[in-house]
Amino acid sequence: MSTMKNPPSILIVGAGAIGSFYGAILKRAGCSVSTVLRSEYEVVKTQGIRITSPLGDLSYQPDQVYRDGDTPVAAPDYLILCVKVLPGVDRAELVRPWMGPNTRLVLIENGLGIERELAEAYPDNPILSCLAFIAASRTEPGVIEHKAYGKLVMGAYPKGIDGHCRELSELFIAGGIKVDLSEAVVGERWRKCLWNTPFNPLSVIANGADTRTILDTEGGEALIRAMIREVMAVAEAEGYPMDEGLIEQNIDGTRKMPPYKNSMALDYLNDRPIERDAVLGNVVALAEHHGIAVPHLNTVLVTLRMRAALEGRA
Amino acid sequence: MSTMKNPPSILIVGAGAIGSFYGAILKRAGCSVSTVLRSEYEVVKTQGIRITSPLGDLSYQPDQVYRDGDTPVAAPDYLILCVKVLPGVDRAELVRPWMGPNTRLVLIENGLGIERELAEAYPDNPILSCLAFIAASRTEPGVIEHKAYGKLVMGAYPKGIDGHCRELSELFIAGGIKVDLSEAVVGERWRKCLWNTPFNPLSVIANGADTRTILDTEGGEALIRAMIREVMAVAEAEGYPMDEGLIEQNIDGTRKMPPYKNSMALDYLNDRPIERDAVLGNVVALAEHHGIAVPHLNTVLVTLRMRAALEGRA
Repeated sequence: MSTMKNPPSILIVGAGAIGSFYGAILKRAGCSVSTVLRSEYEVVKTQGIRITSPLGDLSYQPDQVYRDGDTPVAAPDYLILCVKVLPGVDRAELVRPWMGPNTRLVLIENGLGIERELAEAYPDNPILSCLAFIAASRTEPGVIEHKAYGKLVMGAYPKGIDGHCRELSELFIAGGIKVDLSEAVVGERWRKCLWNTPFNPLSVIANGADTRTILDTEGGEALIRAMIREVMAVAEAEGYPMDEGLIEQNIDGTRKMPPYKNSMALDYLNDRPIERDAVLGNVVALAEHHGIAVPHLNTVLVTLRMRAALEGRA
Repeated sequence: MSTMKNPPSILIVGAGAIGSFYGAILKRAGCSVSTVLRSEYEVVKTQGIRITSPLGDLSYQPDQVYRDGDTPVAAPDYLILCVKVLPGVDRAELVRPWMGPNTRLVLIENGLGIERELAEAYPDNPILSCLAFIAASRTEPGVIEHKAYGKLVMGAYPKGIDGHCRELSELFIAGGIKVDLSEAVVGERWRKCLWNTPFNPLSVIANGADTRTILDTEGGEALIRAMIREVMAVAEAEGYPMDEGLIEQNIDGTRKMPPYKNSMALDYLNDRPIERDAVLGNVVALAEHHGIAVPHLNTVLVTLRMRAALEGRA
């Protein structure tokens, strides 16, 4: 599918639905794509990754299938990190065995403030920060259903667009998806969090409420507005002022979609850990740092912490 | 036990743990005590109410056992209402068949703003408002375990201490419990709600967290302080200014007790309806009325409403 000579080598760390999908796209673009797996190592080693998609059958056999603790054949040109951002998961340590001096570290992960620990651990490696706009899920081990969308927003961390961004984005585009390059990708994270930070954790403490239930409950829309305002205040203090109109846009956009449960609600309902701090805790910590009151966000955060304490988690 | 001549007749509406216990106390004081029951009618009619207590065996056979829809033999002198305050339960209608022109209506119920609908429905009947400080639970139909305490705080509604208060409190004291008469019983409700309004609903959205978990979670004690402050601000606007020191007193007192799950948390964990509005919703409504911001309380309230909507309740 690609016409590029000597396409770069890719290693996907965390080949769940998201990692497997973007690996498939780069495979279609002609890259060598390897994966590091944990529980699904055996099945993927044997039968590859099966992906159904509106783009066609994206199934592929990774060039190498590693598991945690393996020694890599060679460090990749691009290491794409797609694990959940969870307390207790040291992502810098997770990628260490696979990082070479020239490896570009690519994050396709949700949340805010998630690049810093990696930038500090690998100050000489370029970091590309990406947001995925995609509906995909893992239906059984080694089997992914890509339902819709797939666009990436990408930029160098902490800002700018460099040659690595351009090279990797061309490969993704050659593989069949859209990529928006951004000079200020952290600002894009804030923009996405205007929605995620209010809706995701609130749906969890409301026991998995869908978007319609959240907005139609007495006081629900006002609560969401107040939470969006709090996120905006922190974004502005961080150097990313947001247009007031985004409040209405987020609410109107949500009302126009069919009611749905967001990914954090689904994680909660399926007893999977949730990205509490990446989506919410880091925002509240930044608010404290700037002396900004975020009482609504804080109430939700502390409640989630109490639940985690009850369940014996961090 | 009592030396009183012609002791007044008592009717308990809602003879759960609380109602059954205070009925037993008045029975010990020599009153005729009847009950109105729903699901436990048959068992109480047949075998009476069994109560174990540090005060001794308080078991008794009510003088009359009614069920909803029955016609009373005579209107009682005191109708003691002990049902939970829930949306969808019209307490004014519930007591209507049993109210006579001289019946004094006694509320032994939790929460704030719970007297008004009864005062409006029965403007000519005296209303006595009581707070119960008691640990008691229903262990099976018709069987109550009284564990500890039992004191009542009592006053006329909306304020003052009248002859009815004095008569009834003497009977309770004769029966073996303590009664504090209060000139401002609504203020006493606010004082109790300094604890209940933060701790009870928060423990529910934290999935039944006990007091220790709530206070020891990162940010938990600060959240409780903020919520107590919000309740205080509303109390003050309502004419019941509270001493700042009560914040520390409530937190220190809670820390000194063994960790425990409050009654609302237990109701939630046992799939029983919770007194959301009596304990929290009415406080937030009064805050709105006074233009006082209560963002922490409001976040918890709206979350509870979302949960109720998910469960198909009001």
